Amino acid sequence: MKIGVIGTGSVGRTMAARLAELGHSVNIGTRDPAATTARTEPDGMGNPPFATWHAEHQDIALATFDQAAQHGEIVINATGGSGSLAALTAAGAENLQGKVLIDISNPLDFSQGFPPFLSVDNTDSLGEQIQRAFPEVRVVKSLNTMAATLMAEPKQLAGGDHSVFVSGNDADAKASVTTLLESLGHTDVIDLGDITTARGSEMLLPIWVRLMTALGTPIFNFKIVR
Amino acid sequence: MKIGVIGTGSVGRTMAARLAELGHSVNIGTRDPAATTARTEPDGMGNPPFATWHAEHQDIALATFDQAAQHGEIVINATGGSGSLAALTAAGAENLQGKVLIDISNPLDFSQGFPPFLSVDNTDSLGEQIQRAFPEVRVVKSLNTMAATLMAEPKQLAGGDHSVFVSGNDADAKASVTTLLESLGHTDVIDLGDITTARGSEMLLPIWVRLMTALGTPIFNFKIVR
Repeated sequence: MKIGVIGTGSVGRTMAARLAELGHSVNIGTRDPAATTARTEPDGMGNPPFATWHAEHQDIALATFDQAAQHGEIVINATGGSGSLAALTAAGAENLQGKVLIDISNPLDFSQGFPPFLSVDNTDSLGEQIQRAFPEVRVVKSLNTMAATLMAEPKQLAGGDHSVFVSGNDADAKASVTTLLESLGHTDVIDLGDITTARGSEMLLPIWVRLMTALGTPIFNFKIVR
Repeated sequence: MKIGVIGTGSVGRTMAARLAELGHSVNIGTRDPAATTARTEPDGMGNPPFATWHAEHQDIALATFDQAAQHGEIVINATGGSGSLAALTAAGAENLQGKVLIDISNPLDFSQGFPPFLSVDNTDSLGEQIQRAFPEVRVVKSLNTMAATLMAEPKQLAGGDHSVFVSGNDADAKASVTTLLESLGHTDVIDLGDITTARGSEMLLPIWVRLMTALGTPIFNFKIVR
């Protein structure tokens, strides 16, 4: 399948690499490919420069946001939450129209340091903001409740015995995303309901960041025992 | 141990009954014991009248808020979040001073119907509000992330193989609460950190209510797989 990944940070890279490994045709989109390629320093999260990563993933095409969106039959929003709406606007509503958009982003506000706050929550969510901004796109919120490496390869933790959520207004889109998630190794995909249920999954982030501190690792996940 | 339970709703009753069963001396507190006893109709959540429940739990003394607080070496706030500060004020700072207060409440706002919103979240929590209002009390937020029956008897679900959180500023208080939780059957007690981490556990409620709808049962719980 053709997949467009929006965002070249650790989430975008990890998802792009895994999807390419599974045989998909993946484009990874950035605002300015020349600038992204030219960087020689690690990013703010300590990830190596894009070019270093890309040298080992030459099967993944670096593209502009709009090229990546155009390429994808499924598009993945892997940008930071504070930049998601701008990135998707640059990707172009016309390139996203009718497509499934997997929204992995979280509305984390690091302006006050650690732990981050949520810039939107409780009565709204970033998933809903994106759906409202792009009414012709079939937004499915998912994967935003775990570390990038677990999104892509869940079986590395407890053989995959933990949960992932989907929220969205379009049942067919959620079914497509569920199939893709299962191909990655996710075994327990829980449909929370319409896109307003993204409030719930985004509001897991405050305990997620505290758990990361308490446990001393980001390699953990929520399992819904029932 | 002497335990005072503040609140005669389903959480208070379920915890009181279980703690009495384990041999503790339990008082259950209400604003007006005569009015609580006189009720003959189920409450708004469909629970039977208090007197019906109490007839089967005569080892638990019905008391006023302040008597229950005075009785307890450990006090449990099992009131609804919207009434917690008023109930604890009625219980009396002088009766709570220096004691461990297990705060099970959640700041749920049902004024807009279902699903409820949180009346405080993100940059504050009800647990912190209670700690600020009663600086001499050792508040430990816990148990607020699951159905009452699982708080009291976790082993009825998956043999207890799921998680419970504690948040609080006093390490000794958290150790006492952890011991009590383990006596109930909890096997995975995770110390999130100081009382500000109650934001994280309270913010689990929005996905909890959506999961209850999606799964068709309140008998589920979060397990932190790591």
